[in-house]
Amino acid sequence: MTEAIYTVNGMSCGHCVSSVTEEVRKLDGVIKVEVDLPASRVVVTSDAPLSTEQISSAVTEAGYQLVTS
Amino acid sequence: MTEAIYTVNGMSCGHCVSSVTEEVRKLDGVIKVEVDLPASRVVVTSDAPLSTEQISSAVTEAGYQLVTS
Repeated sequence: MTEAIYTVNGMSCGHCVSSVTEEVRKLDGVIKVEVDLPASRVVVTSDAPLSTEQISSAVTEAGYQLVTS
Repeated sequence: MTEAIYTVNGMSCGHCVSSVTEEVRKLDGVIKVEVDLPASRVVVTSDAPLSTEQISSAVTEAGYQLVTS
């Protein structure tokens, strides 16, 4: 089991949190998705590590932007 | 036909706009609902004037707050 923390831009309300959570949750092996709205942070727990591309796609699908640095 | 402009607090994204539009649209006689997100404004076109209480209920139902002054 692995946990990773991402920063997502553009989330401004509970609806945004739901959209991102829903899309990331669909990824293979994801066990838990927690969003900290004020911090723009998404914590993803999964069976195995996920690629940044997978997370980025899911976040984009929800209409937001993954911050990669 | 009548048009009225309201200020609604707490709308921060397109999802919020959808929620408010949906609830206000349900009111009897409403023809059109337009939301100006940056201005926090909701313009309601209806057959006959609506009471502030009706609009306020719909906005509250959507999870936001009508500003009355």
